[in-house]
Amino acid sequence: MSAENEIPVAYEQLEELEDDFEDVELEMLRYQHKLSKDLYARREKVIAQIPHFWPLVIEQSPPDIDEYIQPSDAGLLMNSLTGLSVERFELPDGDPRSIAIRWEFSENEHFENRVLEKKFYWRNAKDGWAGLVSEPVEIKWKPGKDLTNGMLDLVRQVYKDEDAGNKGETEAKKKLKAQMESTGLDGLSFFAWFGFRGPKITDEEHKEATKKEEERRKARKEGKKTDDDDQMEEDEDEDEYEWEIFPTADDLAVCIAEDLWPGAIKYFMAAQEQEAMSDLDFEDDSDEDMDGDEGKEDPPSKKRKA
Amino acid sequence: MSAENEIPVAYEQLEELEDDFEDVELEMLRYQHKLSKDLYARREKVIAQIPHFWPLVIEQSPPDIDEYIQPSDAGLLMNSLTGLSVERFELPDGDPRSIAIRWEFSENEHFENRVLEKKFYWRNAKDGWAGLVSEPVEIKWKPGKDLTNGMLDLVRQVYKDEDAGNKGETEAKKKLKAQMESTGLDGLSFFAWFGFRGPKITDEEHKEATKKEEERRKARKEGKKTDDDDQMEEDEDEDEYEWEIFPTADDLAVCIAEDLWPGAIKYFMAAQEQEAMSDLDFEDDSDEDMDGDEGKEDPPSKKRKA
Repeated sequence: MSAENEIPVAYEQLEELEDDFEDVELEMLRYQHKLSKDLYARREKVIAQIPHFWPLVIEQSPPDIDEYIQPSDAGLLMNSLTGLSVERFELPDGDPRSIAIRWEFSENEHFENRVLEKKFYWRNAKDGWAGLVSEPVEIKWKPGKDLTNGMLDLVRQVYKDEDAGNKGETEAKKKLKAQMESTGLDGLSFFAWFGFRGPKITDEEHKEATKKEEERRKARKEGKKTDDDDQMEEDEDEDEYEWEIFPTADDLAVCIAEDLWPGAIKYFMAAQEQEAMSDLDFEDDSDEDMDGDEGKEDPPSKKRKA
Repeated sequence: MSAENEIPVAYEQLEELEDDFEDVELEMLRYQHKLSKDLYARREKVIAQIPHFWPLVIEQSPPDIDEYIQPSDAGLLMNSLTGLSVERFELPDGDPRSIAIRWEFSENEHFENRVLEKKFYWRNAKDGWAGLVSEPVEIKWKPGKDLTNGMLDLVRQVYKDEDAGNKGETEAKKKLKAQMESTGLDGLSFFAWFGFRGPKITDEEHKEATKKEEERRKARKEGKKTDDDDQMEEDEDEDEYEWEIFPTADDLAVCIAEDLWPGAIKYFMAAQEQEAMSDLDFEDDSDEDMDGDEGKEDPPSKKRKA
């Protein structure tokens, strides 16, 4: 890398600083969990008394989330979402970046499940990559009601085939590839999010990679030359997004965990305020469905009424 | 408000929870400051050895920031920005949400200033509003080189006129209003950001409002009925954005403080990586100016090389 040739010492120091900043970030997540877990438990109890709390929150969700919710998703969420929760499930001892997002539903026309939970694990790969990985989640669609048009099932099948050691061109792979190429992913249902996988990293690889990473950091701290770019080329031949029907699902998960979840009351209040304003205007705007974008110019974070 | 009629108790409890969540947020900001201030000092020293560090960071800045940087702003920033720093200047005792953003420049064709600093103060208003306020900052433009076409100067004049008790229709107000109406604010220079003011709140008003807010919270905690919506109507007749040439400047300041500033090394590395990739492709792409959007599909936060 050119920067390394020009300013090798400064570059090494930047890497070392990034290690330390990352440690601070992890410490902050742990502290936040400690400070707020009782509050979230209290919130849970209060929310239970309020009908349609989560649908109203979703309705007011920020653009980074809202952009993925198609009209048919919105209909389903508005009518059937009864609960949402986020848990940093590897705490207190594990990585605070691992998150589980749990959605609860009432009886609905689309699927049989009452609970859909997706777990994202923070993992290290041997090529130096680090990030969130997950397993495709099964949704038991009712006949003719699959919002992903079979793609979620195919993603699951491909994942299972791989686990069974089937590395070649399976039936599911052929079908999925054909469907991805013919329809594309634009406008795909929010529920395709449950299909996200990320790079496949075994527990063993994660452990080894974590250990190697720790050794590298230690060496860097002691001012020794590390093997960074020399031996750590990424697997260039692997297409990371080949079987991904929702490639930004990890970013969306982080956005849910860091914005929608902590800000739920704020978004709920914004929904209430919007409704009150509609009432003031003497408009007959009492049905709450899908007016997602109205009144968003003034973000609730900026203005709060005491 | 309709929600209050339906579920008054739950609604009061949500307000109380929001108070507690806000306390956690403040505590987190204070803790972050404590944990990371030495790291930022170390980073400052390392950065000083790297030419064009901040221009390269700006070049890779996320869309929420990048969207405000016009081509002529980019030229100026690429060639003359020599330093950037963010300080939570009311810490350790004051509000951690108050932020000062300081930009350093080398000799350039547009203005005489070597330093432009903008301070945002977290303030409470008597109508229950809370948020960031600021004072328009003077930029000493060279003749014919004002990127805001005189608007920044006019905003400053209006602000000064108001301070002098001049509440009527002054010359500056007339001119500013005419210019805002004729040209609009789309595509206005990033440097208009220095003109942001927010609602005008005196120190006295802030102190009184803060005290009242604390009393309200205490009452809420003790389960007493608070005077929330009855007596706390916002001043409906005031147009909050009347003299604002950069209405979202406070959001942008928060984005700089919470994303660009802590993520600077990450963005710098992304710039280096991009350059290295261009080299690999045998493309003659060595001039670094204004290719802001390239290679952004894979956000640096997701993928990091150890």
